Amino acid sequence: MATAHASNSSNLVLPAPLPLDSGQALDRVEIAYETYGELAADKSNVVLIFHALTMDQYVASPHPITGKPGWWSQSVGPGKVIDTSRFFVLCANVIGGCIGSTGPASTAADGCAYGMRFPVITIRDMVRAQVALLDALGIERVHAVIGGSMGGMLALSFAANYPGRVDRVLGIATTARHSAQNIAFHEVGRQAIMADPNWREGDYYSDGKSPDAGLAVARMAAHITYLSEAGLTEKFGRRLQDRTAKSFGFDADFQIESYLRHQGLSFTTRFDANSYLYITRAMDYFDLAEEHGGRLADAFAGATARFCPVSFATDWPYPTNVVHALNAASAPVSFVELSAPYGHDSFLLDVPALDRVIKGFLE
Amino acid sequence: MATAHASNSSNLVLPAPLPLDSGQALDRVEIAYETYGELAADKSNVVLIFHALTMDQYVASPHPITGKPGWWSQSVGPGKVIDTSRFFVLCANVIGGCIGSTGPASTAADGCAYGMRFPVITIRDMVRAQVALLDALGIERVHAVIGGSMGGMLALSFAANYPGRVDRVLGIATTARHSAQNIAFHEVGRQAIMADPNWREGDYYSDGKSPDAGLAVARMAAHITYLSEAGLTEKFGRRLQDRTAKSFGFDADFQIESYLRHQGLSFTTRFDANSYLYITRAMDYFDLAEEHGGRLADAFAGATARFCPVSFATDWPYPTNVVHALNAASAPVSFVELSAPYGHDSFLLDVPALDRVIKGFLE
Repeated sequence: MATAHASNSSNLVLPAPLPLDSGQALDRVEIAYETYGELAADKSNVVLIFHALTMDQYVASPHPITGKPGWWSQSVGPGKVIDTSRFFVLCANVIGGCIGSTGPASTAADGCAYGMRFPVITIRDMVRAQVALLDALGIERVHAVIGGSMGGMLALSFAANYPGRVDRVLGIATTARHSAQNIAFHEVGRQAIMADPNWREGDYYSDGKSPDAGLAVARMAAHITYLSEAGLTEKFGRRLQDRTAKSFGFDADFQIESYLRHQGLSFTTRFDANSYLYITRAMDYFDLAEEHGGRLADAFAGATARFCPVSFATDWPYPTNVVHALNAASAPVSFVELSAPYGHDSFLLDVPALDRVIKGFLE
Repeated sequence: MATAHASNSSNLVLPAPLPLDSGQALDRVEIAYETYGELAADKSNVVLIFHALTMDQYVASPHPITGKPGWWSQSVGPGKVIDTSRFFVLCANVIGGCIGSTGPASTAADGCAYGMRFPVITIRDMVRAQVALLDALGIERVHAVIGGSMGGMLALSFAANYPGRVDRVLGIATTARHSAQNIAFHEVGRQAIMADPNWREGDYYSDGKSPDAGLAVARMAAHITYLSEAGLTEKFGRRLQDRTAKSFGFDADFQIESYLRHQGLSFTTRFDANSYLYITRAMDYFDLAEEHGGRLADAFAGATARFCPVSFATDWPYPTNVVHALNAASAPVSFVELSAPYGHDSFLLDVPALDRVIKGFLE
């Protein structure tokens, strides 16, 4: 029997083709997922965590490529805010991803990688795949769904589309739809990838040269939006990197330049450029109101869960926008706006107030 | 004799090498400039306009490549806010630029283009070149310097470094130094250009293939920052481009995508990628306080001019930051914050309140 703090890595092939919002269906869908803690006999203790755009299922276990601790290790574990000695925590790689679940790098029926033949998917498709996973595991209802950023979109989508299957919905730093500005930043990233000659219309898996330069630029552009202006100023300001004077050249004179270059480069070692295209597309397509007749409140009309949207005052790409709709749907809502200075990425950082909110909400 | 509304295109080679902040000097510096109106006999009516990063000297005359009207045609002309029947308006392409003034695409002494052998220049170097132009034209003092965005940096630098040569300083949507976030966005653009294999370390002038794809991505990333989130939402929202439903593909489904792609592509027809590298570098290096012992107020200690910094409340990359320093230096300041909804680019758009400010300040 696994001890409470151990994680289990699993893969499961869905028993039936997965219907997609595009009208297509995806055959032989594989879902890679991590679990932490033990499933209660009555299966009442499941906490389903959805990961963000560039994250994966390694929420609290070392990443297989980078070796770094899981992205939410500080909050998920025995005795931690999301206590794995009490909850059975489940986190799956989204479809379209590149860390084990079926995505554009996966092998299609003809024996070659999908590449851009992979169907365009939506946030709801990602959720549908994970509901199929729950079905396969015999889990009818979950104690809570939790996610930050894109993970929060999945949490909201889960609540809207499977209202009878969740008791608590915790969406952190998220939105019910992407704004023009959100789409714009993603489009810059996609164009950077597609402009890389190694992208070759997405057909780059066989020859070992991938569009890393374009993917790095995409990551850099996105990364700026994850941090607040004040956070960037505090963390970097105009401080120079390993030098006392400007070089009058094009090296990374400023710490912020060095940091961004590092973020871009290191990202390419663990992420697939085509997955970046597909997942950003799914995020841009996300509009929960549109899926429910144009009125966001109607998306939550059948919801019986308690909701806890958490926003950060410094999160400029994802300002608060879901609370009014939840109130309009008379859903039980405990809205929290935290003043964490780090912007959008605050949910990954050490914010004690967030810990208290999560811990209290899961009771 | 030219009529009041005609423009004159001129080129002048500076009579002496231009000393640069890097310690180098630039030989045979050519300055391309436009003039509008007539120079008064006592030369008392000169308004020197500095252009922004991607603009040029064609402030109120058709652009030679695009054929479009000058970038500030609505404000500069006979009877207009900057009245060329009264003022002699002068606007020069900055050094490092690509529309006639000496820059990385210019021919070096060895008969080949400079490319990345061009020295890294600063905002103060750009100003120094234009002061040399004034000297060559026998203009000792100007009625006003005016500029928006980078043009405002030049205006502030002019006032700080040549305090006896200007009576009025109008800096619009500008800053006394680039923040970490400003630098970050520029660095993304530079990395996009340098990642383009056609860039070839800047040595691309001879074979006809230029790094247009990288330059377009750079332009797209920067362009997002020129518009406010509210402006983007109002102008584009999530509206689709020439279709009634999402394509479930990677075409430009959303209007904002189509707009950005167009902005990126059209930019490459009129701008040189290396110039983009050099000019953004100059902007990132700009720190008026640092140039004056670390205290911004000291930069203006010797100034006798009247100052009018104009900010737009929706301009997120360039929030107000120069007014306190001017007050600390006891400079005569009339600070104006306008509520134009368009963000940073408001100074190029139709903002009647801005017209009134400029007109009044030039009296």
